[in-house]
Amino acid sequence: MFRKLVSVDEAKRILAKNFTPKPVGKELVPLSEAYNRILTRDVVSPLDIPPFNRSTVDGYTVKGADTFGAEETRPIALKLIGKVDVGEAPRVKVEKGTTAEIVTGAPIPEGADAVVIVENTVRKDKTVLVHESVSLGENVMKAGSDIRKGETVLKKGAILSPHEVGVLAAVGLSKVEVYKRPKVAIFSTGAEVVEPGKPLREGKIFNINAYALSAAVAECGGQPLYMGVVQDETEQMTTAFKKALNTTDVVITSGGVSVGPTDIIPKVLDTLGKPGVIVYGIAIRPGKPTTIAIINNKPVFSLPGHPASTLLIFHLFVRSALFHMAGRKEDPPLTVNAVTSERLFPSRGRRTYVTVTLKRDKSRRIVASPVPAGLYGAITTLAKADGFTVIHESQQFIEKSQIVKVELFKPSVYYSLMR
Amino acid sequence: MFRKLVSVDEAKRILAKNFTPKPVGKELVPLSEAYNRILTRDVVSPLDIPPFNRSTVDGYTVKGADTFGAEETRPIALKLIGKVDVGEAPRVKVEKGTTAEIVTGAPIPEGADAVVIVENTVRKDKTVLVHESVSLGENVMKAGSDIRKGETVLKKGAILSPHEVGVLAAVGLSKVEVYKRPKVAIFSTGAEVVEPGKPLREGKIFNINAYALSAAVAECGGQPLYMGVVQDETEQMTTAFKKALNTTDVVITSGGVSVGPTDIIPKVLDTLGKPGVIVYGIAIRPGKPTTIAIINNKPVFSLPGHPASTLLIFHLFVRSALFHMAGRKEDPPLTVNAVTSERLFPSRGRRTYVTVTLKRDKSRRIVASPVPAGLYGAITTLAKADGFTVIHESQQFIEKSQIVKVELFKPSVYYSLMR
Repeated sequence: MFRKLVSVDEAKRILAKNFTPKPVGKELVPLSEAYNRILTRDVVSPLDIPPFNRSTVDGYTVKGADTFGAEETRPIALKLIGKVDVGEAPRVKVEKGTTAEIVTGAPIPEGADAVVIVENTVRKDKTVLVHESVSLGENVMKAGSDIRKGETVLKKGAILSPHEVGVLAAVGLSKVEVYKRPKVAIFSTGAEVVEPGKPLREGKIFNINAYALSAAVAECGGQPLYMGVVQDETEQMTTAFKKALNTTDVVITSGGVSVGPTDIIPKVLDTLGKPGVIVYGIAIRPGKPTTIAIINNKPVFSLPGHPASTLLIFHLFVRSALFHMAGRKEDPPLTVNAVTSERLFPSRGRRTYVTVTLKRDKSRRIVASPVPAGLYGAITTLAKADGFTVIHESQQFIEKSQIVKVELFKPSVYYSLMR
Repeated sequence: MFRKLVSVDEAKRILAKNFTPKPVGKELVPLSEAYNRILTRDVVSPLDIPPFNRSTVDGYTVKGADTFGAEETRPIALKLIGKVDVGEAPRVKVEKGTTAEIVTGAPIPEGADAVVIVENTVRKDKTVLVHESVSLGENVMKAGSDIRKGETVLKKGAILSPHEVGVLAAVGLSKVEVYKRPKVAIFSTGAEVVEPGKPLREGKIFNINAYALSAAVAECGGQPLYMGVVQDETEQMTTAFKKALNTTDVVITSGGVSVGPTDIIPKVLDTLGKPGVIVYGIAIRPGKPTTIAIINNKPVFSLPGHPASTLLIFHLFVRSALFHMAGRKEDPPLTVNAVTSERLFPSRGRRTYVTVTLKRDKSRRIVASPVPAGLYGAITTLAKADGFTVIHESQQFIEKSQIVKVELFKPSVYYSLMR
């Protein structure tokens, strides 16, 4: 199979032409599990909020007209006919010349249209002396004054933060329709890969990418399903891909560490469905041995074995697809400006992503220092990478002390720089 | 019970004096569940990475000295004695004058110290013609060259992003010790509160705060445990608090909506342990009827009933405690500068938090418009609040078109403004 490298932009174009990421589905979840999920439709209030006229004070509920002319020195006497409590349907009706005791939040009973605050009344047995006049609606929160029945309270696509969860509760929803989390099959390849926790015999190394990728999938709103280590052997690989494609929405494979995918993967992929392999090698550093296939409208990303490369390619190609498949707008990249600690060189003819560590220097400038990349620092890179800066194909180098834009791998880096 | 309002700063001081939030505990979790958790200790690599000398190319492994003088036109012949594969202990030993085939990632066999890349060799049966000289260590990644055994790879307090999860896998950990998520009891109070999904009889309103607060607790790394609606009655309230304090690390109560806590809560709290109620009313708007107690070193936050007030007080007083109890540094506030759409007035003598909606105007300025607060717009406020700006006790007002700092309630607001 002939490998023709394509540029990063071309790879993105090819992917976009062959696959349009769409939400994978919808599901009803209980409100208690709705946090951070995404609404599939506008939410319209099925009721007025508040659902009834409520008193906003403790006092006596009246017909406003009955208090006309009342003053501090010249009260008007009303007959006390009962009490209205919070959470209860009123059992009294306020007729002309009468009043009922009421507390904050309780419903205004039939016949009444205003409330006199308790401080402006004097009670004597069954008589209440009202020392102020109140107009119609005074100290009353009208039904529907906050939200009217039929009003749209939340929009399709809203991320359910604590505020939105509160709004859903307010309109009485115990369940809510949200986008399904896309299921993502992850498997590792390579005879040298051993699961962490198992003994490491000679020649073996621990499986890194399956765990790092599972976390990255969760971070984008996907549901990682780890399917184990598959050997570089046609039959096993075919079985693994078939199973993954039948049960999940996206498939991601990668080597255990620092070994590029063998040629078996693209060959197998091309037998499984159309259009098959669409990208086979990208002019990028790191991450050249990246294969992308679309099989019956499901994307398969075969990522490089080097873990820092795998996470970078994930960030550039997989993240956006997963966001959209989860019904979510992609968060724009979190970036900071930083000065380079040294001259940075690209890999000739390839767009080069220089992984950097960020620190503030004495004058509070953010300094970006490249971390050792390539085969010799796989884990060091992983541990120290705060983000990356890009050297375009056309650039010769980036000068020392130049200001560059650094895209961050995680918000915690941003927060710690801002502290 | 006498209510003496304290200022926001004083309330924070009193809380800090009476309660120092500390991580509530540690637990071992499988690596597959470690994403976004917090490390309790430095992680030291128990092994060299790579654990053995590895070939970085496909080719023939040799004693470098054997290739001395080899050139393109003058190859040196070595005897082929076997092959080393990835993931296997080598079954050959390279003696003087011999070589073994090797693939990328495979261990360098005993006796060999370098690798000749396949492109610079010609193979004829059991003889390999080497057309370049390689020096000792060439094309070999030395054991420990990435990470040395005993090296600290991650620091205590690190948030486990996909990168850190990868590092843990690389050093072979299948489980990792992380801080426990603090358990937070949440209950609502009030006779008028009905759970969403249930029928809403007259005089009742839906329970909003329990759901909004549960989501807010989850957002800060806590584990919300909803304990239902408790009536404003001494015995029920005492039982509920005792149960909550016995089984969780923090207790949060609030009214269902827009009804302040009755006086029963502070009285009950004072009977349950020392020091009891430490803050009983704060000179803040909204959120005045906030009660804070410490019972046997566990904090109890009794929040106002109005849901927007509840979430604001949560943000100002509870969030920080939960972060620390979860073993996590508090994320600094996410803020933007915005111009005010109108003159903003404070509530006299109280620090006033004006809830605002943020939008960009035609000239791309971010404009902060106050959303209707108070009793008349509880849910509207909840639905539209992007963040808040603060008017200090000493300020008379904030002028229209003035630039103010707005603290955001959620990162999604930041992202949508930056799009």
